[in-house]
Amino acid sequence: MENQIFQLQYAIDTFYFLVCGALVMWMAAGFAMLEAGLVRSKNTTEILTKNVALFAIACIMYLLTGYAIMYDGSWALSGIEAFDLDGVLASSAENGFDGDSVYSGASDFFFQVVFVATAMSIVSGAVAERMKLWSFLVFAVVLTGFIYPLEGSWTWGSADVFGLYNLGDLGFSDFAGSGIVHMAGAAAALAGVLLLGARKGKYGPNGEVYAIPGANLPLATLGTFILWMGWFGFNGGSVLKLGDAANAHSVAMVFLNTNTAAAGGAVAALITARILFGKADLTMLLNGALAGLVAITAEPSTPTAIQATLFGALGGVLVVFSIVTLDKLKIDDPVGAISVHGVVGLLGLLLVPVTNDGSSFSGQLIGAATIFAWVFAASFAVWFLLKVITGIRVSEDEEQEGVDLVECGMEAYPEFMNK
Amino acid sequence: MENQIFQLQYAIDTFYFLVCGALVMWMAAGFAMLEAGLVRSKNTTEILTKNVALFAIACIMYLLTGYAIMYDGSWALSGIEAFDLDGVLASSAENGFDGDSVYSGASDFFFQVVFVATAMSIVSGAVAERMKLWSFLVFAVVLTGFIYPLEGSWTWGSADVFGLYNLGDLGFSDFAGSGIVHMAGAAAALAGVLLLGARKGKYGPNGEVYAIPGANLPLATLGTFILWMGWFGFNGGSVLKLGDAANAHSVAMVFLNTNTAAAGGAVAALITARILFGKADLTMLLNGALAGLVAITAEPSTPTAIQATLFGALGGVLVVFSIVTLDKLKIDDPVGAISVHGVVGLLGLLLVPVTNDGSSFSGQLIGAATIFAWVFAASFAVWFLLKVITGIRVSEDEEQEGVDLVECGMEAYPEFMNK
Amino acid sequence: MENQIFQLQYAIDTFYFLVCGALVMWMAAGFAMLEAGLVRSKNTTEILTKNVALFAIACIMYLLTGYAIMYDGSWALSGIEAFDLDGVLASSAENGFDGDSVYSGASDFFFQVVFVATAMSIVSGAVAERMKLWSFLVFAVVLTGFIYPLEGSWTWGSADVFGLYNLGDLGFSDFAGSGIVHMAGAAAALAGVLLLGARKGKYGPNGEVYAIPGANLPLATLGTFILWMGWFGFNGGSVLKLGDAANAHSVAMVFLNTNTAAAGGAVAALITARILFGKADLTMLLNGALAGLVAITAEPSTPTAIQATLFGALGGVLVVFSIVTLDKLKIDDPVGAISVHGVVGLLGLLLVPVTNDGSSFSGQLIGAATIFAWVFAASFAVWFLLKVITGIRVSEDEEQEGVDLVECGMEAYPEFMNK
Repeated sequence: MENQIFQLQYAIDTFYFLVCGALVMWMAAGFAMLEAGLVRSKNTTEILTKNVALFAIACIMYLLTGYAIMYDGSWALSGIEAFDLDGVLASSAENGFDGDSVYSGASDFFFQVVFVATAMSIVSGAVAERMKLWSFLVFAVVLTGFIYPLEGSWTWGSADVFGLYNLGDLGFSDFAGSGIVHMAGAAAALAGVLLLGARKGKYGPNGEVYAIPGANLPLATLGTFILWMGWFGFNGGSVLKLGDAANAHSVAMVFLNTNTAAAGGAVAALITARILFGKADLTMLLNGALAGLVAITAEPSTPTAIQATLFGALGGVLVVFSIVTLDKLKIDDPVGAISVHGVVGLLGLLLVPVTNDGSSFSGQLIGAATIFAWVFAASFAVWFLLKVITGIRVSEDEEQEGVDLVECGMEAYPEFMNK
Repeated sequence: MENQIFQLQYAIDTFYFLVCGALVMWMAAGFAMLEAGLVRSKNTTEILTKNVALFAIACIMYLLTGYAIMYDGSWALSGIEAFDLDGVLASSAENGFDGDSVYSGASDFFFQVVFVATAMSIVSGAVAERMKLWSFLVFAVVLTGFIYPLEGSWTWGSADVFGLYNLGDLGFSDFAGSGIVHMAGAAAALAGVLLLGARKGKYGPNGEVYAIPGANLPLATLGTFILWMGWFGFNGGSVLKLGDAANAHSVAMVFLNTNTAAAGGAVAALITARILFGKADLTMLLNGALAGLVAITAEPSTPTAIQATLFGALGGVLVVFSIVTLDKLKIDDPVGAISVHGVVGLLGLLLVPVTNDGSSFSGQLIGAATIFAWVFAASFAVWFLLKVITGIRVSEDEEQEGVDLVECGMEAYPEFMNK
Repeated sequence: MENQIFQLQYAIDTFYFLVCGALVMWMAAGFAMLEAGLVRSKNTTEILTKNVALFAIACIMYLLTGYAIMYDGSWALSGIEAFDLDGVLASSAENGFDGDSVYSGASDFFFQVVFVATAMSIVSGAVAERMKLWSFLVFAVVLTGFIYPLEGSWTWGSADVFGLYNLGDLGFSDFAGSGIVHMAGAAAALAGVLLLGARKGKYGPNGEVYAIPGANLPLATLGTFILWMGWFGFNGGSVLKLGDAANAHSVAMVFLNTNTAAAGGAVAALITARILFGKADLTMLLNGALAGLVAITAEPSTPTAIQATLFGALGGVLVVFSIVTLDKLKIDDPVGAISVHGVVGLLGLLLVPVTNDGSSFSGQLIGAATIFAWVFAASFAVWFLLKVITGIRVSEDEEQEGVDLVECGMEAYPEFMNK
């Protein structure tokens, strides 16, 4: 009967991973809709293509190399061995069913693979409306197969950073990836944006910043709701175990705090935008909700619900100022991804020590610097190589015409566009 | 080992709440898409803003005051104490693990908080296309923080109605909220609509009713599918326990009946509209599906599947006649929310005694009257105060131009609209 | 305590069915969005109406006749008796809680009913833009109430094919329905398309094939993501049990393989289209992902993740060539449904023996031929009868004007369309 109880626990924990993983996979649709809603209609087909293709590439590369690099310290495919039911059961029988995290390795892979796709999704929005599609997809291969997994191995894989130091030992903690996933994605995006330059017509010669409105705000709103929902899986699944009372309660707190942080971010950004711009700016509201989610992701289990709301609100205020500031610096990020995931991702890391005694402020800074330095430098090198070899930016004419026809051969809304 | 079994049950019941809660949260996206699809393009950004903001406000207000009012009989924040793992485990240990509903208080809060957002979402559609955004958001604070929680305390919180009588004792039963959530939301909406008046151009001087078509029917259809899916969590989670055979079977019956009631409502409304209007009216089909869902919500666990289909079909027929009738009364509800959630919500309450012996027809009537009277009167007072103090309706020019530019400063589809 | 463990297992397996069923129901929204995005705007309201209505009809017909035909060998409604908690508990008590699949019959029905809707959804896309709405809905009644359930009874119901031979005995295996659901839906669609003829303007007199672009590619992309997500329930739930380690591991492998097959299909179709057409064709990318999903559906539990990726990639290549070939044959399928679900469904069946020793190549061929012959012939007969009695095609003028106004009386995007 003890065996039956163990098997039930195994089943529950596996199912929990699968449900959370399905929710994170759903975030891919969220990024696709958010970005498709915030670009102009002439660049919509291409960004949809990018989002579907990068998700598929991420899944394949993580299977071929990523999972092994991140969790096994090897370079390819050995992670697959973990998907072996007999091995898991035997090892837990040896351990006397002691209640350790025991679940299907396949469910763990399924949950982790959707994370790497999230990191890459962040990039696609920031480089929208002027990047060559195939260069972008080559970058996706490298980021999801190598850059992200190596970075992930230093934290969730417990490996030393290039054999030099260990982030966990230094007091670095990042529960579900404010830094490991979100800031990392933003660092890769920033490297691309700097090499790519701003869209034509975004900035004037005397410091003017021209708004380039997104073509379809209901889509952007839908994308935000999808991300909000998927984030329950993203953070909730990162407890990594459900099947006893303490862990189940922790998962519940994570769901609750994730939701309320998003709410805090949304309201704070709405009010901030109202004060700064005089209007209820929907795009800032959406970015505020996302900022709240990013801000709580580094530690959603230890804050109280009130603290989570406030942390989210901090993210919501910060993201508005960050978007304005990046535009002043002429760093052109059409969807605000660098602000939402990068700047607020850093905020999330720095908030961890407020409620989690197991982390230190210095550890968070060192961890953030390590992640940013590696991902930015490695991405910059790859973007630079691509720029030299194949080019990364479409021609001026192509940008004017829109990348949809030149890259994909079809318009997103052939019957609606005012030409 | 008994403790292990208890912990597994705790984990399962908690997870069940969280999954159902995530589905109900998803309904917020459903309302947003439904309403954005049914208004004109010039009023789309504003209704998206409303829907995201009201969800965020509902989450925060329910945390600050709502949950405590509804379940603890106190006025603020004490509900948070329930999110204490040790307390729950200790209390259940005292009770000898007797199989009572034991799950994380945080998961219960998470599930309940998304309900209050649903009630408020109903309002936003009915007052669309002419209400001031910030007045609406102030109303959202009051409804989600006070009016709804107090009403909820009389039923799900078992409190007496202003110390006078107890709805449960009178034989009132509302399983998942046909009355408590849906009719309550519609009552608040009706109060607003009466004070607000109809949109310009909706009604002619000689009783003419002019159709004002929604700008994006795929969005409205998507919203309906989202609501249909989310309703599995709304009704299914309202069993409040999954972890034994009887409750699990009950949850399964609720899923089954919820689905088939929606199907019955859709088919019935499609046929009714075909007979009345001569066309397969998509918006009536969508409202029919939603009406089926509202009709079964007061009692989805005791009907057979055939009964549930018929109850849903009744709702589907009723909603078509109700929408036509409200237009004759010049009560202008752009998305049909008062008919779907209010009129059919009442039908749902009145159908409960057909299959549930624990309720009485008189109890249902008294309960419905109590809920409607309180929510309508309190909402009317708040709307009236807002009307006097800040105004609730935009100017004629602003209505003509569309509320998007004046309230939010941006168009929803800047490249598509025929101006 | 043994009873408590049994009840927990019952609860988990029931909940697993319900969650998977909700995901499959969500696929109805995916088909609706995919098809609405791929037709022209003047035919969008009608295809939305079809998709909502067919889902509702499928749910009702499966309740009235389908489930009984498929699983009980009777003609109506007796399947409902299975939704009896006491019977299930008694029968499992007799069996000594031996760990057999024991879960709520209601949850099983809920899971199965959404499958029949999927089969019918496949049809709606293929006959889009020229079929009469009400003839289509009558066909939906017959397919979901009779044609599909009888076919399903030969495989998942273990009945003999017209008393002649048994597919299971011949070595036919179809885990989640590459053939039983997808190829069956495509066979019904093909019969309709052959009787209906091509859309006006699709093919020129000298073999020219004219592209008729879809009006809204973000919708089509959203639909694909929804289907991708829902497929986790479609395949994952087809393990039919979660509550022990072996089955839980199997469910996890199915989720993993379903995801990676979609990824393989997407990447393979993108590259194939790039080679053939010179562009990153978004619609082929989407159909490639769906083809990967269909290809793995006949056996997602036994392949390794690498095999699943390759099987998906085969599907992705095949679907591009199939779409091109069908156009050469002047078989006009606006959304590519016959290629995705029919041609690749057959591929899926033929791949089963590669990894599943319990099936044989001959058995797969016989099974595929049986399913195709029955569904095609029966559907052809019904379509033909409808053609004779009521007609199945709108008039030339109506096709020119668009079916939305004539069938539904409203446009999908009244403010956007360039007229």
